[in-house]
Amino acid sequence: MTPPASPPPLKRAAIIAVGSELLTPFRSDTNSLHLTDQLNRLGIDVVLKMIVGDDRAELRELFQIARQRSDLVVTCGGLGPTDDDVTREVIAGVMGRALKEDVAITEQLRTRFSIRFSTPMPEINRRQAMVPEGARVLANTRGSAPGLWLEDDRGVVLLLPGPPREMIPMFAALVEEGALQARAGQAIVVRRTLKITGRVESHTDEALQPLYREWEKASPPIAATILAALGQIELHLSMTTPTAADGHAALDAAVAQAIAVLGDDVYSSDGRPLERVVGDLLVAHGFRIALAESCTGGLITSRLTDVPGSSRYVRHSVIAYSNDAKTGLLGVPEALIAEHGAVSEPVALAMADGIRAQAGVDVGVGVTGIAGPDGGTPEKPVGTVAIAAVSATSTRSRVYRFMGEREQVKFQASQAALDMVRRMLIA
Amino acid sequence: MTPPASPPPLKRAAIIAVGSELLTPFRSDTNSLHLTDQLNRLGIDVVLKMIVGDDRAELRELFQIARQRSDLVVTCGGLGPTDDDVTREVIAGVMGRALKEDVAITEQLRTRFSIRFSTPMPEINRRQAMVPEGARVLANTRGSAPGLWLEDDRGVVLLLPGPPREMIPMFAALVEEGALQARAGQAIVVRRTLKITGRVESHTDEALQPLYREWEKASPPIAATILAALGQIELHLSMTTPTAADGHAALDAAVAQAIAVLGDDVYSSDGRPLERVVGDLLVAHGFRIALAESCTGGLITSRLTDVPGSSRYVRHSVIAYSNDAKTGLLGVPEALIAEHGAVSEPVALAMADGIRAQAGVDVGVGVTGIAGPDGGTPEKPVGTVAIAAVSATSTRSRVYRFMGEREQVKFQASQAALDMVRRMLIA
Repeated sequence: MTPPASPPPLKRAAIIAVGSELLTPFRSDTNSLHLTDQLNRLGIDVVLKMIVGDDRAELRELFQIARQRSDLVVTCGGLGPTDDDVTREVIAGVMGRALKEDVAITEQLRTRFSIRFSTPMPEINRRQAMVPEGARVLANTRGSAPGLWLEDDRGVVLLLPGPPREMIPMFAALVEEGALQARAGQAIVVRRTLKITGRVESHTDEALQPLYREWEKASPPIAATILAALGQIELHLSMTTPTAADGHAALDAAVAQAIAVLGDDVYSSDGRPLERVVGDLLVAHGFRIALAESCTGGLITSRLTDVPGSSRYVRHSVIAYSNDAKTGLLGVPEALIAEHGAVSEPVALAMADGIRAQAGVDVGVGVTGIAGPDGGTPEKPVGTVAIAAVSATSTRSRVYRFMGEREQVKFQASQAALDMVRRMLIA
Repeated sequence: MTPPASPPPLKRAAIIAVGSELLTPFRSDTNSLHLTDQLNRLGIDVVLKMIVGDDRAELRELFQIARQRSDLVVTCGGLGPTDDDVTREVIAGVMGRALKEDVAITEQLRTRFSIRFSTPMPEINRRQAMVPEGARVLANTRGSAPGLWLEDDRGVVLLLPGPPREMIPMFAALVEEGALQARAGQAIVVRRTLKITGRVESHTDEALQPLYREWEKASPPIAATILAALGQIELHLSMTTPTAADGHAALDAAVAQAIAVLGDDVYSSDGRPLERVVGDLLVAHGFRIALAESCTGGLITSRLTDVPGSSRYVRHSVIAYSNDAKTGLLGVPEALIAEHGAVSEPVALAMADGIRAQAGVDVGVGVTGIAGPDGGTPEKPVGTVAIAAVSATSTRSRVYRFMGEREQVKFQASQAALDMVRRMLIA
C-alpha cells in the first residue's frame, strides 16, 4: 500500500468527471480541458476521459478501469456533503483505505459556516471531513470540500472538487508547490500557438509540409497540429523536453520558421486575439479609430472594446443599419447607393471616409453586407460583405463572400475587417 | 447474433467519443450534449460518457465496458479513411462481424470526389466503404463517412461520424424515420425551459419550493432544475410520459404555474433568447429602436442584429466611446456630464433621448458605464453602469453594479438594457 522509495514517473493520466448533471444536455465537463493543459505541461499525457453519474457501482467499476490504464487518476466532483456525493467513499473502498473523520477539517468547516454564512454547519457536512487512511488533504480556498491525494504502488489518485472555481486554484497550488512535478519526472511539455488569417487550412498545411518533416526529425521532435476555426486557423506546436529553457528556444526557432513561410498571415504567436493585436498596433502608431458598421451590427466595435484600455483608441462608431443612416449620418451620397447598391466597395469606402472625417480620427472602417437569411440576390448572395479601411496614407477595400448562418457571417466579416486594419497598419 | 423478434426497449445509452484531438486541451466533445438531448426525448437515459484516443486496444476495452453497462452504445468519430480511424474495425471485431466492401458506397464516394473536389477518390477512402456483416448503412449527406447501425441480442450500436455538421443531420434522419423511437419503447421525455431575469438563483428557488413539492408528487412527476448563468436564470422542467400530448399538456400547466409565481421576470418559455423576445415585442408594437452605447461598445446592437429580420426595427446606433462623442453626436449637454459624471442616470437618459430624436424612432436606449479594469472610483467602482430606455409614453432608468471581468460586465449590461426595453414594452 505504501509507494516504493523511488516510484516510476507519472506518464499516463485518466480523468473522471463525476456528477449526474454532466449526463444531461445542459452541462459539459470543462475541467478536463484545463487539467489536460496543466498535465501536458508536466509531460503527462491524458489517455482517457470518463463521465459518470452519482452512482456508486458505476464509479467503482470505471475507477478500476482507469487505474488499469493509467498511473494518475484525477476525479472531479462528488465531494459534497450529501448522499449523492459518492467519490470519497467509492475510491477509499476500492483502494482499501478506511475513512476517518479529520476533526481539524470539521473545525475549519464549522468556522467557515459561521463566518461566511452566519449559520451553524449542518451536521451532514461532517462527511466532507472524512479522510481515507494515508491520504494527504488538499486545502480548498474557495469552497467547503477539501481535495485528497492518495498514492500506492500503482500510482497517484487525486480527488478534486467539481466546481471549476474551486478545482482550478487547488490544482494550481499542487503545481506551484512542485508535488506533481516531482512525481512526473524530468520531461515537460512546452507549447506555442500561431494564429493565422487569410489562408485556408489545406493551403497552410501544404505550405508547412517541409517544416513538418524537419520538426519530426528534430531531437526531441516538435509536434504540429492545425486547427481550423471560424475566420482563422491555429497552428499548435509542442515539444516534450528535459528543460524548459531548451524547449522554449527550440519552439521560438520553429515559430520563426513558420512565420518565414506564412509571412504576415500569422497575426499572433503569443496568444493575443486579433482585436488585441489591432489595438496594440493602433497604440504603437498613436492612432485612433472609428467604425461605420452595417451588417456586423456593432460586433467589430464590441470586439475592439473587449480589450482593456481600448478607450484610448476607439473614438466612436455608427451602426448604420438603414440606408437613411448611411446617407444621413455618414454622408454616403444617395447616388452612390443607387448606382452600386448598398452592399458594394464604393459604399463601404464612402462609409469609411465618412466616419473617419466625422470622428476626426486616423483610421476609418466601413462594413456593409448581407448577413442573411433574407436579402440575398443572385449577384449578391447572402454572405456578401464589402469592407473598407482608410487612413491618411492608405485605402483598402474588398468584397468577401462568407459561408454559413447569420452569426457566422457577422463573425467572419468582423474578423476580415480587423485583419484589413491590421495589414494596413503593418504595411 | 440476430435480435429477438420483439427486443426489450432501449433504456440506457453510453456515448463514446473517439479521437486523439479530444484528449488535448483544445477540443472538447460537444456531440454528446446534442445526442443526450435527442436520446432523452426518446426516453433513453445517458448513463456513461467516455472519450478515447485513436487507439485500438483502448477503444476495444471501453466499448466492451460500455456494452455491459448500457443497451445502446453510440460512438462518434474514427470513421475516416486513414489508419488513425479505428472505430469501424474495432467494433466489428468485438461484435464478431466480418467487414466487407460495399461497392455501392465506393461508387458514391468516387462520384462525390469527382463532383465536389474535381479529383479522383484516393484509394484509401475505400476503407469508408467497409461495412460489418448485418449492419445497416446510414447515409451521410454532409461528408464521406457513412454511419452504421448494428444490432444483436445485447442491444443496438450506432457508429456516427465525429464532425457535428455530419453527425447531427444523420442522427436527425434516424429520429425522423422513427427507427430509434420504435426501439425505445413508449416512454418519451418532454421538456420546457423558462428563462428568467431580475432575480437571483436562491430567491427563485425559494419562490418555487411549493411548486417543486407539487410537481414531485404529480403522476408522472415533473423534474425541475435551476441553472444560473450570467445575467439570467433558467428553470428546466422535464417529464417522462407515455404520450407526448399528455406530457406537453402537463408541462404547459406547470409553466403557467411558474409564471404565476415569477411574473414578468420570466421572459421566455419557448427557447427564444432575450434579443429575440425584444425584437418580437418591437415588431408587435410596430416600433423601431436606436441605441446609444458607451461601455457596451456595440454589444447590445450586435445582439439585437443577431436576430434574422432585425433590420425591420433596428434603425441605427451610435457607439459613443468618448465624452466628445456623447456631446457632439448625441447632444448630451457638457454641463450634465460635468455635474453628474459620464456614468450617471441623467447622462444615460440624455443619451437615450438624443439617439431617439436623432434617429426619429419610437424607442431610444442609452448605456454608459465602467467596464474595467481601469476607470473605477470609490463612488463608482468598476461594474457601475447607468442604463436608460425612453419611448413616447415611458421613461426608465437605473444604475446597476455588475460583478466580474470586463466582458462579463459588458454582457450583464447588455442583458439589463434589453430587459429594461422588454419590461417597458410589456408594461
